[in-house]
Amino acid sequence: MKALRLHSYWRSSASWRVRLGLNLKGLPYEYAAVHLLKDGGQQNSAEYRAVNPMRTVPTLEWTEADGTELRLSQSIAILEFLEERIPSPALLPKDAYLRARVRMVAEAVNSGMQPLQNLAVLQRIKSELNGDDKAWAAHWNVRGLEALEALVKPTVGRYCVGDAVTLADVCLVPQLYGARRFGVDVSPYTTLLRIEAACMELPAFQAAHPDRQPDAVPV
Amino acid sequence: MKALRLHSYWRSSASWRVRLGLNLKGLPYEYAAVHLLKDGGQQNSAEYRAVNPMRTVPTLEWTEADGTELRLSQSIAILEFLEERIPSPALLPKDAYLRARVRMVAEAVNSGMQPLQNLAVLQRIKSELNGDDKAWAAHWNVRGLEALEALVKPTVGRYCVGDAVTLADVCLVPQLYGARRFGVDVSPYTTLLRIEAACMELPAFQAAHPDRQPDAVPV
Repeated sequence: MKALRLHSYWRSSASWRVRLGLNLKGLPYEYAAVHLLKDGGQQNSAEYRAVNPMRTVPTLEWTEADGTELRLSQSIAILEFLEERIPSPALLPKDAYLRARVRMVAEAVNSGMQPLQNLAVLQRIKSELNGDDKAWAAHWNVRGLEALEALVKPTVGRYCVGDAVTLADVCLVPQLYGARRFGVDVSPYTTLLRIEAACMELPAFQAAHPDRQPDAVPV
Repeated sequence: MKALRLHSYWRSSASWRVRLGLNLKGLPYEYAAVHLLKDGGQQNSAEYRAVNPMRTVPTLEWTEADGTELRLSQSIAILEFLEERIPSPALLPKDAYLRARVRMVAEAVNSGMQPLQNLAVLQRIKSELNGDDKAWAAHWNVRGLEALEALVKPTVGRYCVGDAVTLADVCLVPQLYGARRFGVDVSPYTTLLRIEAACMELPAFQAAHPDRQPDAVPV
């Protein structure tokens, strides 16, 4: 039996993606909360930096049947690892081009949107540049959502790419939540909203929602 | 025969990664220059946005033997596609955990560093926030390089992960070039520099360098 432990923060969209991957694959895991705001950010502690030098969540600790301990960070790398080790249910299509379309949408979120609204980035926008961090984050979300709406059009079915959930949906749903938090009007993105609604009917998506996590703070 | 066309900008590190992937796989391609500064940025033109709604380079156009035209953006999605369609020489190890380590390093660059020094981001730091764009970029590069130096330690051989070139190296080399451009002293990162030197001995890396591209501007 594999023992899994996920270092996560309830509102971190990258942690959310991995919670989704684990839920969709039916993998139970221990939840290790990393509070990104408390104590100057627990991710900056020497203890956590030894676990993850990038000082980000999530980090997945995976103990093999023989006791070997693996440790992985970067949500997309973790999700690809889960896909390779636990192939069913598949979160990537079989066809190479469709797989690429899934990864393209996932990366448009993972590298095109989320890094720009990362907590460390917003803190620097505010503290170093006296900027409006919420307006900054909203700008990149609008730009990204416009692109995503166009990117999914050629492949959309019930979900981003066809009628099965993929890594594209796993990235999209947390990003829409983030966009709303930063005050973005998401109503123009009707295709994305329809996909989100379809995802949220699934128990794996419901259980991965920030509000359902042990470290969630009631608003 | 497959016809390939790459929309690229000489100094774009994401374009550079895909040039490396194509060179390492031995795939010739047509070079379609997209000037990110001229005409208010050619990536913002209606024509290019139809090709790539994210308004980024690279975009790869790939014509199948039967004439089907595929179009892909997002460097990591393109590199994974190349790996699946042209498996040899492999740019990912066989072992799932080592593959994940490669992707972790690649993503630490792709989502953890490069998005924060993206041209559109630097322009906004300067124009909207009156910030020092070069200092902004340098900050995230230092933070990222420190993490990368630690991330590669457990797996380093001649390259980031063992003794074969992988997608981790393909992401690392252009990032080091970017860091130097922003004035970062890269000398503390001795492991990364050693890997870079090993890569630059390879003709595929030499040919992908910005200075060797048709749209390069002599400094």
